[in-house]
Amino acid sequence: MANSLQLAHQLKGKHVLLVGGGEVALTRILKLIKTDCKLTIVAPVIHEKILRKYGGFDTASDGKVHRNEKWVPGCLKLYQYVEDTFNDDYFALDNKEGWSFIMTAIPDQVESERIYKKAKSIYGPQQMVNVADNPPLCDFYFGANVEVEGLQLLISSNGSSPRFAALIRDEVKRHLETLDLEKSVETLGTLRSRIRDLSPDMSQSKYRMQWIKQCTDIFGIQNAARIDVDKLVQLYKTMSQEQSLTFPPRTEVLANYTV
Amino acid sequence: MANSLQLAHQLKGKHVLLVGGGEVALTRILKLIKTDCKLTIVAPVIHEKILRKYGGFDTASDGKVHRNEKWVPGCLKLYQYVEDTFNDDYFALDNKEGWSFIMTAIPDQVESERIYKKAKSIYGPQQMVNVADNPPLCDFYFGANVEVEGLQLLISSNGSSPRFAALIRDEVKRHLETLDLEKSVETLGTLRSRIRDLSPDMSQSKYRMQWIKQCTDIFGIQNAARIDVDKLVQLYKTMSQEQSLTFPPRTEVLANYTV
Repeated sequence: MANSLQLAHQLKGKHVLLVGGGEVALTRILKLIKTDCKLTIVAPVIHEKILRKYGGFDTASDGKVHRNEKWVPGCLKLYQYVEDTFNDDYFALDNKEGWSFIMTAIPDQVESERIYKKAKSIYGPQQMVNVADNPPLCDFYFGANVEVEGLQLLISSNGSSPRFAALIRDEVKRHLETLDLEKSVETLGTLRSRIRDLSPDMSQSKYRMQWIKQCTDIFGIQNAARIDVDKLVQLYKTMSQEQSLTFPPRTEVLANYTV
Repeated sequence: MANSLQLAHQLKGKHVLLVGGGEVALTRILKLIKTDCKLTIVAPVIHEKILRKYGGFDTASDGKVHRNEKWVPGCLKLYQYVEDTFNDDYFALDNKEGWSFIMTAIPDQVESERIYKKAKSIYGPQQMVNVADNPPLCDFYFGANVEVEGLQLLISSNGSSPRFAALIRDEVKRHLETLDLEKSVETLGTLRSRIRDLSPDMSQSKYRMQWIKQCTDIFGIQNAARIDVDKLVQLYKTMSQEQSLTFPPRTEVLANYTV
């Protein structure tokens, strides 16, 4: 089976079309709303939770297309909500800016497939489309997600075993929560900025990056929270005089450069 | 900062354009080649490793466009290699099927930006483009990857700290390798198929899926390898007679239904 290409899409201010307003649509919205994309939902009936939390529309001028005129990135609201079954005129709601993604989450598989084909014929075969519960009509899958300390993780089973992916997601989350990641991030940030302050000119940046890479590889994330920044800055001063990347043995570093 | 939308793209037989043939391009190729996409590389000079491992072309009829006429999904080779600096005529090498992704990995940032803008003007603002080392011109980021037992993991720092993402990647990989995932996958697969064989009709599929979800949640991936399939199949038989989802307490399950 071929690998997926796993990517992290930046969707701020970009249009995304979601056809459907039920439970599956809600799971899509939860992922999309935090990307600050301009999300348009088309559905005759919409899950009450969705409207309550992500609504905030003015009254639709035609009784169907509700637009959030106060939408700005970060507002965590839908951009448009069309209170209607989908018809092809609604493709034009992208305001000629194109749809980064088109997703359907409706029980009607025949209509889903029609929408899929129409989208490809209008925008070209490269248009990214996902039809819920129909893998052959999915240019992409969602997978299981973990968020921790500003990081996002995606676990994909490539369609073969979503349950296994979910179990791994739970295990990875549990394991990462046992590590003091907040402290690690802080310590690594302090180390990086203290060292940058020592040699602010760009000529040192390549050496500095290599040094920090090797240094942090020695500690690993399990020991990063215990780094003695003062002592490591001294070590950097010494090593950088000779542009050396030969660190003391790992056991010695872990014993002598931690608090 | 907005979240990314992390997705797993299915690229079998789809066109991807990569401009550049150096070290950065090589990192892209390593991810792309296993997706079975039709990968076109445009570069006047190409990293020797790339040609040796992913080449296999017939001689170019015009001395520039080398096509792999024997390309099939799974062959793990480039589809086309254009031995030239990029010019806009080469956009047409998608054979009118569109580019799922366009990526540049060249040192010339001015030319990169020109390619980015040209791609958007030809294919529309929704065209997915990534310009290496220029985050504002990236519709998507790559992040750090782990592969284990048919699963793929993506760890994204959303541009803020790739080093932290790499350290987490190493830790997640190390931790997952301590688990007996091969045995877990096998045991879960056996459990699923044995239970499906008991009630092959679709009317039971919702109950069966809920039962398996709750059951596997009780074990978690850490204990999945130790599941006593025979005993659990007996438990399913008993519980399914009453369509019950009330399992014995977790400690009891872990003590009595493991080998």
